[in-house]
Amino acid sequence: MRFLLTNDDGIYAKGLSALYKELSKEADCLIVAPEIEQSAVGHAITISRPLMVRRATKNDVFLGYAVCGTPADCVKIGITELSGKPFDMVISGINRGGNAGINVLYSGTVSAATEGAILGVPSMAVSLDTHKEADFTYAAKFARKMSRLILRHPGQFKGSAINVNIPFIPREKIKGVVVVRQAQSNIVETFEKRIDPRENIYYWFAGESQAARKQKDTDVGALSSGYITVTPIQYDLTRYDLLDALKSVVKQNNF
Amino acid sequence: MRFLLTNDDGIYAKGLSALYKELSKEADCLIVAPEIEQSAVGHAITISRPLMVRRATKNDVFLGYAVCGTPADCVKIGITELSGKPFDMVISGINRGGNAGINVLYSGTVSAATEGAILGVPSMAVSLDTHKEADFTYAAKFARKMSRLILRHPGQFKGSAINVNIPFIPREKIKGVVVVRQAQSNIVETFEKRIDPRENIYYWFAGESQAARKQKDTDVGALSSGYITVTPIQYDLTRYDLLDALKSVVKQNNF
Repeated sequence: MRFLLTNDDGIYAKGLSALYKELSKEADCLIVAPEIEQSAVGHAITISRPLMVRRATKNDVFLGYAVCGTPADCVKIGITELSGKPFDMVISGINRGGNAGINVLYSGTVSAATEGAILGVPSMAVSLDTHKEADFTYAAKFARKMSRLILRHPGQFKGSAINVNIPFIPREKIKGVVVVRQAQSNIVETFEKRIDPRENIYYWFAGESQAARKQKDTDVGALSSGYITVTPIQYDLTRYDLLDALKSVVKQNNF
Repeated sequence: MRFLLTNDDGIYAKGLSALYKELSKEADCLIVAPEIEQSAVGHAITISRPLMVRRATKNDVFLGYAVCGTPADCVKIGITELSGKPFDMVISGINRGGNAGINVLYSGTVSAATEGAILGVPSMAVSLDTHKEADFTYAAKFARKMSRLILRHPGQFKGSAINVNIPFIPREKIKGVVVVRQAQSNIVETFEKRIDPRENIYYWFAGESQAARKQKDTDVGALSSGYITVTPIQYDLTRYDLLDALKSVVKQNNF
């Protein structure tokens, strides 16, 4: 077994280290991760400038490849150029901060897994729902278990990324594992307007995901209720339910 | 009528200028666009640093707000902070380069429209399928027509972004307008490996969308055959067809 590990918090992040430690028991793991933090970069890729790749070390031992790019870049170059051997799975994380609801679209962690799926490798994103310093041990153990389950059905999960969120509560308080849809709740959008030392106005995005907490069949709702959430993610963004309506709108008109 | 116009090629791009010129005949238009080019940033948003906003001018006349952020940032701050009045529509473009197939996920242009849809405003992305210097006049006229059609059915297209691609061929050779799904063709992934002046290795992404050209019911296929393509885009990334399979996989196991 060979796994590609990446993240969006950067190659030296604790969550990635915990993931590596645990998944190395399961597979030969290669880390290809961003040189610096890339949170909220979504599915950005780097096309206008080159990608520098550095052999990163930790205590003088090879840690992995540090890429001056986005999580999606790391997956692309990891699979296409740096590995030499095919991967059985791409695992992205463990992210510091949940990636549920609309945040899935902004998440570099999830986009890395989506990129793996696009490239035909079963993929998974794993996030721990806290922005504080945290212990990732349990989340890593869960990631290992999920990876085994997914790899037992490689045909079924080819072309799909699995988005996993783990609540930041004591292990014994976790209520279970649920498979749920992505919440479509709006983030409550606010910007803080501030004045810089030179009296220029600037803005800081302060949006918070707050709605849909009560929808238990969604990732946002179940996660906030103490469940580990599992959501399959696609990369076909077509809104199929609107195709026919649009067709009739376009048909009625001569262009 | 009030429209928010944005893009990912930057506030001074020709495509945005053509869009403004044409859509000003239809509505009161406010431009909120990136200060510098943001191609392939996907649905990135800026959370780790503040957004600087500048009143941009052209020939000493107010042009719009230039934001040192991504297209999605522009839509968020445009709607939430800068406008003061609600928008009837968000229109993003006209992009220099098509945004079809997997490129939809990487596109800042499309993500701006998706962000508008998330915020409850009918939205549209418009792209011209060329990377050369081009005349955007016809594409802008088409955008204006499409905006009228969409606004005739605001309830139906609330929460959905419409992705429009226009082939770069003479007006009379355009075969028509088709409503199609997003192609899921893999991009052919290649990286060019090069050596910098200091003898370091670097990589440049050289992926090209090539497959699925023959699938006429997709954006990639229809666009390359000479049709204007119209595709409704969603922001619920749940792969619903896999929910049950994952549920049975998770159920069989004790965590």
